[in-house]
Amino acid sequence: MTEVESSERLVHVPLGDRAYDILIGRGLIARAGGEISTRIKGRKAAIITDEHVGPLYLDALMDSLQTDGIEAVSLSLPAGEKTKSFEHLMRVCDVLLEARIERNDAVIALGGGVIGDLTGFAAGIVRRGVRFVQIPTSLLAQVDSSVGGKTGINTRQGKNLVGVFYQPDLVLADTAVLSSLSKREFRAGYAEVVKYGLIDKPDFFEWLERNWEGVFAGGEARAEAIATSCRAKAEVVAADERELGRRALLNLGHTFGHALEAATGYDSKRLVHGEGVAIGMVLAHQFSARLNLASPDDAERVAAHLKAVGLPMAMGDIEGELPPTDILMEAIAQDKKVKGGKLTFILTHGIGQSFVADDVAASEVFSFLQEKHPG
Amino acid sequence: MTEVESSERLVHVPLGDRAYDILIGRGLIARAGGEISTRIKGRKAAIITDEHVGPLYLDALMDSLQTDGIEAVSLSLPAGEKTKSFEHLMRVCDVLLEARIERNDAVIALGGGVIGDLTGFAAGIVRRGVRFVQIPTSLLAQVDSSVGGKTGINTRQGKNLVGVFYQPDLVLADTAVLSSLSKREFRAGYAEVVKYGLIDKPDFFEWLERNWEGVFAGGEARAEAIATSCRAKAEVVAADERELGRRALLNLGHTFGHALEAATGYDSKRLVHGEGVAIGMVLAHQFSARLNLASPDDAERVAAHLKAVGLPMAMGDIEGELPPTDILMEAIAQDKKVKGGKLTFILTHGIGQSFVADDVAASEVFSFLQEKHPG
Repeated sequence: MTEVESSERLVHVPLGDRAYDILIGRGLIARAGGEISTRIKGRKAAIITDEHVGPLYLDALMDSLQTDGIEAVSLSLPAGEKTKSFEHLMRVCDVLLEARIERNDAVIALGGGVIGDLTGFAAGIVRRGVRFVQIPTSLLAQVDSSVGGKTGINTRQGKNLVGVFYQPDLVLADTAVLSSLSKREFRAGYAEVVKYGLIDKPDFFEWLERNWEGVFAGGEARAEAIATSCRAKAEVVAADERELGRRALLNLGHTFGHALEAATGYDSKRLVHGEGVAIGMVLAHQFSARLNLASPDDAERVAAHLKAVGLPMAMGDIEGELPPTDILMEAIAQDKKVKGGKLTFILTHGIGQSFVADDVAASEVFSFLQEKHPG
Repeated sequence: MTEVESSERLVHVPLGDRAYDILIGRGLIARAGGEISTRIKGRKAAIITDEHVGPLYLDALMDSLQTDGIEAVSLSLPAGEKTKSFEHLMRVCDVLLEARIERNDAVIALGGGVIGDLTGFAAGIVRRGVRFVQIPTSLLAQVDSSVGGKTGINTRQGKNLVGVFYQPDLVLADTAVLSSLSKREFRAGYAEVVKYGLIDKPDFFEWLERNWEGVFAGGEARAEAIATSCRAKAEVVAADERELGRRALLNLGHTFGHALEAATGYDSKRLVHGEGVAIGMVLAHQFSARLNLASPDDAERVAAHLKAVGLPMAMGDIEGELPPTDILMEAIAQDKKVKGGKLTFILTHGIGQSFVADDVAASEVFSFLQEKHPG
């Protein structure tokens, strides 16, 4: 049985017959067997992990499964975005079928977003769907990819272009494992935590301003921040599972962010996704202020908080030269479709008051970027 | 607009927000553009076909799409079961992405079950799902794979082990194209038509006994038989979309049939799927009679009808030697899980009175087969 300890959090994601629980707390990997065996009928499992995470946690997970009578096989893949490929998808499917994983058996993703996306996709297509458990080991994966059901791989045409919507049966977010992340990686995930406050939870943003040091230190505040983030994303996803409307709010900061990632050639030494989102969120608030939708004070407040935790918050914080504004605009146009000179953007009326604007003039974006980054 | 002509049939498959129409009639390929353009927002399409079907109907389909303002690309794949592979799935996905098929554009499967299964899978995973239109060109595909949403590919571990449930947006069953099928291929599809009568439509079986020559000749009776079959399958699928219960009835005749396909090494010269199902349905009725569940007269009536249309209806009708009974039993056990010596089988109380039995003794099946086929 699930006994939620006082220091733990349980977030229920209400998606009808695809509803599931996210458990958040310290030491959940060691308890995984018990949590899985009460929720899933099958007594077989296959764990997919990567070469960074496997050596740290695979043995503990295997032990826990064995203790609770679940027979498990495992596969360790190379770490990194390149693993989200058809080639590795085929390999995972082959391992699942060789292990005779049936509909009621569990496929477990032990790793960050790459492992979660790839494994979820395989779990969604082997036998047209088997049980799926996520054990996200990065902050970004715990607060972002563990909710929403998006799975997929990359192709030569772009990222995440092939995949399925497939909900997990259980997510175990073990907050203790986050201590093995580099500070930079933790901060990048934290940018997405801040995002949930900025979308529609001004109180949560304020709470983060006061408690971020506790979140970084671990313990209660960390579990609380992750639970609030998961709950926030779950609300949005439950209202819009297949991404037709409100779910677009989750892209706050992402249009500018993606353009900056592209502009830096996806070179993680210069910029990782969460850092792009951090700068993108500040830009979205500044741009909204420029359009007289929000007060400039809000943009400054966002920038100040991101700076306090050590995140970049302006284009000038990125090391090295950025390409000229017209190249940035091209990257934005590739991310979003331009229709008659208009773009869809997530803008804001202030902290916690984001909205979808589908009539943003491309020329306004250009002038704004020109101002922020003359070139 | 869809104007259903008097000689045409429209079957609505009621699956909530995944509901769709099946149009059945002569000359629908030439009208495809109009039917698709009223139902799908996008103005791009990609047609996937095979090297047998493409030369016959691809030009007519392309013309029709162009007339209605839909810009289409096409890909022709090798004909045959081997095309249901990861390799060809990747190729189809690549073509769809290169053609910039978006969520509201159409992917069209023009061909039999192999093309439908492969293309539907690709349509279900590219951009996590784009619009999907089926134009089935075999009788089997029109009455079986066009309803139910099962898509997939084969792997070295077996058939259809990787795939998704993905419903089409529209099915166009052009009954005129069936005239290009060989008589043997048409008959094999007809076995599945008979199956719907035997499951729970005794009146339809009786109608087939009287009207089968009209069905084979084409025209009204053919459209009626296909429509009734699609409606029958749609009823079962709507009640059990993800195959958890009642949908198992669709496997009437399939457990014996699959075993015979395996026993003949999937050699289509000796036995094709529909022929295996024909013999399997007779065996299911005979076995039910042996268990005193049904009258032996019903088995004889089924056998007589299948014989009349030229289908095999006994193991002795298969050319060449069959393996001994214990090998057949092994094939059955591979198809169905044996739990404590018990098998799940579709049995019957008589024509149109099939049911799922989950406690059939493997030893009874063995004795029965031994009797029918001493060896």
